[in-house]
Amino acid sequence: MPQQVADLDRLFQALSDPTRRAVVERLGQGPAATSVLARPFAMALPSFLQHLDVLEKAGVVTSQKEGRVRTYRLTPQPLQAAETWMTTQRQLWERRLDQFDEFVRTLKEKAQ
Amino acid sequence: MPQQVADLDRLFQALSDPTRRAVVERLGQGPAATSVLARPFAMALPSFLQHLDVLEKAGVVTSQKEGRVRTYRLTPQPLQAAETWMTTQRQLWERRLDQFDEFVRTLKEKAQ
Repeated sequence: MPQQVADLDRLFQALSDPTRRAVVERLGQGPAATSVLARPFAMALPSFLQHLDVLEKAGVVTSQKEGRVRTYRLTPQPLQAAETWMTTQRQLWERRLDQFDEFVRTLKEKAQ
Repeated sequence: MPQQVADLDRLFQALSDPTRRAVVERLGQGPAATSVLARPFAMALPSFLQHLDVLEKAGVVTSQKEGRVRTYRLTPQPLQAAETWMTTQRQLWERRLDQFDEFVRTLKEKAQ
């Protein structure tokens, strides 16, 4: 499987969970330590760490450990790749609708 | 779980597979019957039908049966919801970067 395809697979998979999307939303405000990220969630820490791991493997976040504190930050390029894919699909679809409108208009003109 | 959150879960899950994304890309060009959609894939029909089922349950496509032919078409609203989520995240992140630039500029001006 080409790398780019596998990347989008992992990326959309990473975003298919509300906890992981909430982490992305939080990191949009700036880097944060594991404990800060975990605080809003009523979840055992090992489960939460698994979510962070999925995000990191998808390339959505990176982390760095200093002493006992691991800090996470967003890496926006993968999110942009997914956004681009979706925008492209929408544009193709809208172009097709425009062409369909044009076709219907032509039929109407001919019928007059 | 609120409906909107569950919707995004199902949607991103649906898009996390290359076959399903290819079907979305194809349906962007217009509605198509099952057999037409299945043709490019070296896959047993039952497996392919499962992919269509995932897309339909996520609300990305709808289907209608006439006689023995089932035709699929794209329903773009759910895709737009996902695109909106991603665009919002990017905008928040870019705004933060702008604020950070501004902060660094202020520090530099003070240092001069």
